Amino acid sequence: MPKSRELAQANLETLYRIFTVPVAPESTLGEIDKAITDDLTGFLQQHIVAVERDLDEIEGDFSQSRIPEEPTYVSDYTDFLKEKLVSQSVHTASPGFIGHMTSALPYFMLPLSRILTALNQNLVKVETSRAFTPMERQVLAMIHRLIYAQSDEFYREWIQNNRYALGAFCSGGTIANVTALWAARNRLCGPSGDFKGIAREGLVKALRHLDCQGLAVLVSRRGHYSLGKAADVLGIGRDNLIAVDTDGNNRIDLVRLREQCARLKGEGIRPLAIIGIGGTTETGNVDPLEALADLAGELGCHFHVDAAWGGPTLFSDRYRGLLRGIERADSVTIDAHKQLYVPMGAGMVLFKDPATLSSIEHHAAYIIRRGSRDLGSRTLEGSRPGMAMLVHAGLSIIGRKGYELLINQGIERARRFARLIDAHSEFELVSEPELNILTYRYLPSWAQQVLAEAVPERRAQINEILDKVIETMQKRQREAGKTFVSRTRLAPGRYGGDTITVFRVVLANPLTTDDILSAVLEEECEIASQPDIQAMLEQIKG
Amino acid sequence: MPKSRELAQANLETLYRIFTVPVAPESTLGEIDKAITDDLTGFLQQHIVAVERDLDEIEGDFSQSRIPEEPTYVSDYTDFLKEKLVSQSVHTASPGFIGHMTSALPYFMLPLSRILTALNQNLVKVETSRAFTPMERQVLAMIHRLIYAQSDEFYREWIQNNRYALGAFCSGGTIANVTALWAARNRLCGPSGDFKGIAREGLVKALRHLDCQGLAVLVSRRGHYSLGKAADVLGIGRDNLIAVDTDGNNRIDLVRLREQCARLKGEGIRPLAIIGIGGTTETGNVDPLEALADLAGELGCHFHVDAAWGGPTLFSDRYRGLLRGIERADSVTIDAHKQLYVPMGAGMVLFKDPATLSSIEHHAAYIIRRGSRDLGSRTLEGSRPGMAMLVHAGLSIIGRKGYELLINQGIERARRFARLIDAHSEFELVSEPELNILTYRYLPSWAQQVLAEAVPERRAQINEILDKVIETMQKRQREAGKTFVSRTRLAPGRYGGDTITVFRVVLANPLTTDDILSAVLEEECEIASQPDIQAMLEQIKG
Repeated sequence: MPKSRELAQANLETLYRIFTVPVAPESTLGEIDKAITDDLTGFLQQHIVAVERDLDEIEGDFSQSRIPEEPTYVSDYTDFLKEKLVSQSVHTASPGFIGHMTSALPYFMLPLSRILTALNQNLVKVETSRAFTPMERQVLAMIHRLIYAQSDEFYREWIQNNRYALGAFCSGGTIANVTALWAARNRLCGPSGDFKGIAREGLVKALRHLDCQGLAVLVSRRGHYSLGKAADVLGIGRDNLIAVDTDGNNRIDLVRLREQCARLKGEGIRPLAIIGIGGTTETGNVDPLEALADLAGELGCHFHVDAAWGGPTLFSDRYRGLLRGIERADSVTIDAHKQLYVPMGAGMVLFKDPATLSSIEHHAAYIIRRGSRDLGSRTLEGSRPGMAMLVHAGLSIIGRKGYELLINQGIERARRFARLIDAHSEFELVSEPELNILTYRYLPSWAQQVLAEAVPERRAQINEILDKVIETMQKRQREAGKTFVSRTRLAPGRYGGDTITVFRVVLANPLTTDDILSAVLEEECEIASQPDIQAMLEQIKG
Repeated sequence: MPKSRELAQANLETLYRIFTVPVAPESTLGEIDKAITDDLTGFLQQHIVAVERDLDEIEGDFSQSRIPEEPTYVSDYTDFLKEKLVSQSVHTASPGFIGHMTSALPYFMLPLSRILTALNQNLVKVETSRAFTPMERQVLAMIHRLIYAQSDEFYREWIQNNRYALGAFCSGGTIANVTALWAARNRLCGPSGDFKGIAREGLVKALRHLDCQGLAVLVSRRGHYSLGKAADVLGIGRDNLIAVDTDGNNRIDLVRLREQCARLKGEGIRPLAIIGIGGTTETGNVDPLEALADLAGELGCHFHVDAAWGGPTLFSDRYRGLLRGIERADSVTIDAHKQLYVPMGAGMVLFKDPATLSSIEHHAAYIIRRGSRDLGSRTLEGSRPGMAMLVHAGLSIIGRKGYELLINQGIERARRFARLIDAHSEFELVSEPELNILTYRYLPSWAQQVLAEAVPERRAQINEILDKVIETMQKRQREAGKTFVSRTRLAPGRYGGDTITVFRVVLANPLTTDDILSAVLEEECEIASQPDIQAMLEQIKG
């Protein structure tokens, strides 16, 4: 091992070397790097161990709080990394891991990511990003067009118009949602007369100016938890994030929504925004966006669509109708690290009106000056990497038709999986897939019958037993390391008000085959046959 | 070129291929990838062009708003990227680019970044991050210890205690500052009696509960612009971010600060936080942190230190005293993508008390459940990448002593550059470097004399002429592409209240030599000799 080429001791010469001398290809790190380049899937399969070590044990490897005094050889460090970190990572790209929203990455993303890292541009300002700035604006325009389909003329006017923005890039959907509501709040409470606007005077004076008791944001109970954070951060308060009941398909109940609006009016609370969900995180359902757009119009409030997950459904000619009404949204969140298949850390928020983001515009003396092209004057974040390049690469290399195939595949695979679950005597489909997400639970047909005949009180008891069963099964499946589904809690109409624990499946990895889906159910049946779980199930017969 | 191995047409088979077949090494992308691996500096120097193309022209390359219908060959796309994007990027790592905070990266960061991308972990929850979660906690503990130097026992108790957090990782210093003030705000306005806390009830009811008219944050005029965004987002209002005047060394004026506190008290406005700056972005100065800690203690308010830039000075035994008092801060922001030399997109906020972040704790049904180890329950962001791994790598490979050398070098190089400027008859040092940042301007000695003798009105006129000179020179230097300094506006005491435009220099790139610094000044003298600039200078003689 050519340790001489690595940092051996803390002196200036070796310090310069780590900034100028590449890692030797024949070093441990060079070898790992080459293995990833040559065969990512193989590398992950080989090095990520099949069976989980206990988390407490792993924590033991990361229990030292002192920064090492002396430098370490790169190769020694890489050995540590391989043994203690890589081997204990989660194989997020595995086609049998269908419980989360991280899929496999297209291969070209890896070398392109290296270019991105090597260029190390900072998108806050043109001075440190040059061509990346217009490229990011182009990507935002492309996604804007995918959603809003404005005219050629519209995009010619706005795509590179630095006094306005069609949207903002950010680290993920949470910052995108916060940005959307921040802009909506500042627009509602903009400067007028003596009032200098909420950005300057703050929320208390803004409400006094608007002559109301508070602001509210309305979304269904299936709204993403980031909206609660947004309500908290923005000073609105979580109690004013109104969680509206859903119908049997996890879509917002419009009657209840109108009731809530009436109640708020009575209390002098002004609706800031109505949020429609374009693919709920837990069940993949889509709210009736047209009706929500109508209501937002009536109330004169902002209409935001959280399409962090489902937005890319717009690529599909066959299924884009599922998001009908999204083009009427004032703002839309889309995550690129989900169904655009770019690595972690890329979200976007698009605004129908290029002037909306002006409500959060800000400047400084040394960068993002007035009149500059610096993107940082209309983003919540400051310094940030050029992740837009990877979105640009995906859109260019995979193309609209390629993404369409990926979307169609996922939705159709989810439907087939739903039929498989339906046909299986030991499972119950809980939520029918509308996009590519579904939920189900372990429920042998005999138990299903007992449940159907039980009085409400007994039904609730049985569901509690089943919750314990599902939770135990999900943990065991995860620990076995072969396949993975996640779990959540839902209140499907069929069990009165009972909230139950369910398995959750996300089908976005193109490498997931129908055979793998069958194997997931088989493994779950095996787990269910373990004595302690059988004992739990026996209690249902009680 | 083996185009057959790349995505040729939109059918399922080729689609699977891009997820499973690596990019061929002999393809354009493979070649670029290899060139970066073999010689990053050479690659950047060769491909990033010396002379800037006009930004309007570059925008022309990114003016198409339609997403391409058909897929593209990876190699064709890479050719495009090389010609239109890479060639027009900014050589942020160039040792002659001393105007921004992005330095060269240590070589090992590139292959390690690839491992990070390939693993594509999501740090929001253990389910998709496993070993990365305890690693991130360890990194936070290490930086916590660097700042607060608590006992072994303290860190044993908290480092992996999932019910608390020593800090939060985030995409950058802005989110770190927002998180610090968010936690401070929610702690000040926590639940008490009938009041359920600001997180639930919002800011208006919180202020009613506290019986005050508003909240204020106090920081010097040199505070980073992200603090204005934080005041805006959090509902406090930018007018309540009190910009306190500074002394002649760009440090907060303590008398003025106390005056402002007294004024706020009179108006019924409660100080939420005092912010000390550990290295101002524009001048690298450090506020008197001890005195600020004393005052925050008196007022019973939160004391935050924005050490996004200067925090790593703590690595240096010789210079850590410059940050004396930082260990009394309730929270500290540090950017890893600045002086920890990791790629763009890594910030941290540390909290002295592991319970502070509990004030923003949140949960959901499908992840970040109560009692889980999921880091996402105490971060503003949701899904995010495992950038902590690169910080861990830097701390391990470079070591405390390695970082100490980097810090010492930068500070000492800045001092030498200051003497070079002082000794030069055509320049004026505007701010003496305290850390590794300084400002200066072009001011030939004859003009310096005219200025010294001018009455205030004429002085202001001359300074305006000089502003124009500096602005023009800075743009020309940037456009020439050889070296780069940035510019900002400051009000140094020596010119009464006049705000002047200055060159700003940041010396964190270990590859920047004293010869390069001389070359920067030489180039500026050459630019100053151009006829139109000479004509501007003539007006000073007026």
